Formats: sequence, structure tokens, C-alpha cells
Amino acid sequence: MPTPRVCSVARSLEVVGERWALLVLREVFLGVRRFEAIREHTGAPRAVLAERLAHLVDAGVLERRDYQAPGTRTRQEYRLTAAGRELQPVLTALMQWGDRHLADTDGPPLRVVHAGCGAPVRAELVCAEGHRLSDDGRELRPAPTATPASPA
Amino acid sequence: MPTPRVCSVARSLEVVGERWALLVLREVFLGVRRFEAIREHTGAPRAVLAERLAHLVDAGVLERRDYQAPGTRTRQEYRLTAAGRELQPVLTALMQWGDRHLADTDGPPLRVVHAGCGAPVRAELVCAEGHRLSDDGRELRPAPTATPASPA
Repeated sequence: MPTPRVCSVARSLEVVGERWALLVLREVFLGVRRFEAIREHTGAPRAVLAERLAHLVDAGVLERRDYQAPGTRTRQEYRLTAAGRELQPVLTALMQWGDRHLADTDGPPLRVVHAGCGAPVRAELVCAEGHRLSDDGRELRPAPTATPASPA
Repeated sequence: MPTPRVCSVARSLEVVGERWALLVLREVFLGVRRFEAIREHTGAPRAVLAERLAHLVDAGVLERRDYQAPGTRTRQEYRLTAAGRELQPVLTALMQWGDRHLADTDGPPLRVVHAGCGAPVRAELVCAEGHRLSDDGRELRPAPTATPASPA
């Protein structure tokens, strides 16, 4: 049987290709950093959440830090690493697709805006020549890479 | 216990929040449309693939069409719907993150370019005022929606 395609989509999905993983990243991005709070906001079962958090830490997307409020015991909180922050285009693209295709009559439940000007933000397909492409991928085409990814 | 956050990321993940679902969409985008070919290119187990394809059809992201090559029996193939094509920013964002953080020494295994000019394409965060934001989300902030999404 042929080898499955080698592709960065597949590799990324090894890290974040699971519903709870992306919901956890959404929460940490929104400033929710402690286990119990993440659990409440995602609805993830406790054991599943513990496993996903450990996986995201191992993958270098989240880091654990000790956190202590005055007069309380030390707790751990989760922070995005630089690599984790760079998943923001993935989350934004998922959000806008849901807003468009799955929103109920109340409209989008959450908005994300540009802190600098307050305008809503989208994930757009843009080429290196600066052309903005439509969302539907009709202007995209796959192209060969310099080094074909064929197993020896 | 509080209700989990209502959010379009979560809703989108009900449809595509699973590794095989997104790999299937990648293949159909690349023009691979028949069950056996999708199975070979993704490596998905047969039963899992059948279940995922049915789910994506039910969700309105893929559609089944009859397909007949001359002299052969009719087969079914899968096509992206308009809603399915609009998942392209999600796939592109996943691909570029993997290219950046998980590529091996061979570099990116697959490239996607603008059909019009041949330049490589990225998923970028762009605000409605036309500002291009950095990938890391530092210029983003959550904002209240017109109608707060609080369960009654």
C-alpha cells in the first residue's frame, strides 16, 4: 500500500488535530490559564483535559508556569509559547468559518478585533505578491516543491 | 458547573475537529476524490474513513457524485461544496504552521501558490481596515458581541 502523503497539514494535526486541543488553545489565548477554569470553559472531561494539556506542553505549544496569588498555595498555569501564539491564524480561520456556516440567529458569539484600530479580524489567503485571494481556494493551486517529498 | 463557552471555533470543530476529517478535505482539495485513493493518500483505516466521509457529507462540506469512466461501472466520488471550499483558510493556516514549526530538513513537503501569479500563499490575519497583523495574535483582542451569548 502506498505511503500516506507527507504534508505539513498532517504534521500540524499530530499536535492540534483534535477538538479539545484547539479549544484549550482558544481559552489560553483568551486569558484562561488554570486547569479548572479551562475545564469549565471547554467542557472537556478532566482526564482528557489533563492528557491534552500534557501533549500540548510536550509539543512546545504551551508551557506550565508556577503561579501564586497572595496568601494562596502555588498553582500551575498554562501560557502559550511563541509557537502556540502562531496558531492564531488556525483558530481565526475556524472561527470565521463557523460564524459564516454554523452561527445561530444570535450571530457570532465571539468577536476578535485588531487592538490597534478595533476593526474585526479575518484570516485571509494572501500571496507573496500581495494579492488577496477569495476564501474558497479557487485561485489556489498546488505546486511542486524544490525537493519532492518521496520516501526512498 | 458553568456552561462551556459558546463559540464558532467549537461549532466548526464539531464538523472538522478531527485529524482524518481535515486530511480528507486536503485530499479532495488536491483533486483526490475516490474512496480508495483518499484512503491511500491519508492512511486512514477503512471504517474510520467511511464514517468521516459520511459525517462530512451530512455536514454539507462534501457531496457525493456518481462518476463513470468509459467501460467501467459507476463509482462514487466526493466533491467539496461551497462551504467545504471555504475551509481552505483553515487548511492553509495549518500547513504554514507545520511548515514553520515541524518541517524536516527537506523543507516544506507541499506548496500552494496563487494560480494567477505563481507566488506562494499564506493565511494572514487582516483587519477590516486593511491592516495586516502578525501571526502571533499579539495585535488581537477579544471584543464583546452585539448580542452576548449567555444561556438564559
